[in-house]
Amino acid sequence: MDVDAVVFDVFGTMTDWRSSVAAELAVVGERAGLHADWAAVADAWRSRYRPVLGRVLAGELPWQPLDALHRMMLDEALPEHGLGALGEAERGELVRAWHRLRAWDDAPRGLELLHDSRLITATLSNGSVALLTRLAKQSGLRFDCVLSSELARSYKPDARVYLMAAELLDVEPRRLLMTACHPDDLEAAARAGLRTAYVPRREWGPTVTPPPPPEGVDLVADDIASLARVLTS
Amino acid sequence: MDVDAVVFDVFGTMTDWRSSVAAELAVVGERAGLHADWAAVADAWRSRYRPVLGRVLAGELPWQPLDALHRMMLDEALPEHGLGALGEAERGELVRAWHRLRAWDDAPRGLELLHDSRLITATLSNGSVALLTRLAKQSGLRFDCVLSSELARSYKPDARVYLMAAELLDVEPRRLLMTACHPDDLEAAARAGLRTAYVPRREWGPTVTPPPPPEGVDLVADDIASLARVLTS
Repeated sequence: MDVDAVVFDVFGTMTDWRSSVAAELAVVGERAGLHADWAAVADAWRSRYRPVLGRVLAGELPWQPLDALHRMMLDEALPEHGLGALGEAERGELVRAWHRLRAWDDAPRGLELLHDSRLITATLSNGSVALLTRLAKQSGLRFDCVLSSELARSYKPDARVYLMAAELLDVEPRRLLMTACHPDDLEAAARAGLRTAYVPRREWGPTVTPPPPPEGVDLVADDIASLARVLTS
Repeated sequence: MDVDAVVFDVFGTMTDWRSSVAAELAVVGERAGLHADWAAVADAWRSRYRPVLGRVLAGELPWQPLDALHRMMLDEALPEHGLGALGEAERGELVRAWHRLRAWDDAPRGLELLHDSRLITATLSNGSVALLTRLAKQSGLRFDCVLSSELARSYKPDARVYLMAAELLDVEPRRLLMTACHPDDLEAAARAGLRTAYVPRREWGPTVTPPPPPEGVDLVADDIASLARVLTS
């Protein structure tokens, strides 16, 4: 595929948010003497993500860094799981769990392979620059550049976010490949003129089948290492 | 020193722009049958840098990516050295020489040491995000994040550029260390509330003595590897 740069979704595509966040919820919750199905709490937290982004993009909520939205979503999810007793410090610590997500095993290897090629790599995530920088550093994900929808003061799937990435990397949209495990992210990228690669991930746990690839996707790969091999071969 | 992140000037501080640009001028010029003192042409090109930035910051020129300013400066410098015959394609190629600068020998090693520490590293340069991303990739400079004055649509030494870096990295200005070989860059960073580290470089060639460190600088180090050892010890 004739592209000059590859941008990556991060939550789900490069990192296993569910097991990472559930593990941190368990540590923080049990330290406070609380018990719950921690994976279910992680799911409840994350399931508020798309609706909240939708409210920001519709102008119902002002744009704010993802940490602030994560906090709002957490405050809604905790009482539903009998965890309303968690205090201010614990909630702040949990919001920062999203800065420390574990990478999927294949992702660091795939990025190293791309780093050694002529292709430029970058994040293109709704996480803030600060979040993505810390996450990449501690999870061993080597990107050539950290790009965030924060730099457009918007969120994916707003077309401006994809076009901003092409502009900042100085590549034509059709020579920029968006990689994600979320069909709607790829559909929006394609509408903005980018090429797209779908990587299925069991981001909601091992028993939840990933969605089918979106129609018209340019490339489907089993994982990031496999995508990197295809792109550099 | 109690800081959370370190940002680096790039032209001069991390890279030897003079020998890199002179070498590319020699290749392009001699291919066109032209002869000149190529290091002197590089100096003449670069010496237009501060005056042009000054005109942008004074509102006399609109903000534009550094490539466009480099082109304007090149167009002025070439005829003075009998190189007015260089064509459009050659001039475009020369502007991109700034995307391919060689790193000073100690810089990749210093960045690797910092990468393995808790400290976040980033560029903070007047080069564009695209320029810095390519330069870092091909010169082996491993930054955790690529920050450019482009993201504030301004240029150093505008205070907004330093404060933008603190905000995007989510650190307080006083916990952010600006590293540069240019006293005026460090003075402006200090005025914006950042901590400062001075690294002397013979950026104008081996016979030109670097300036003395600015007054009130927090740290002086021989090179980036030495700075990294001090910060991680």
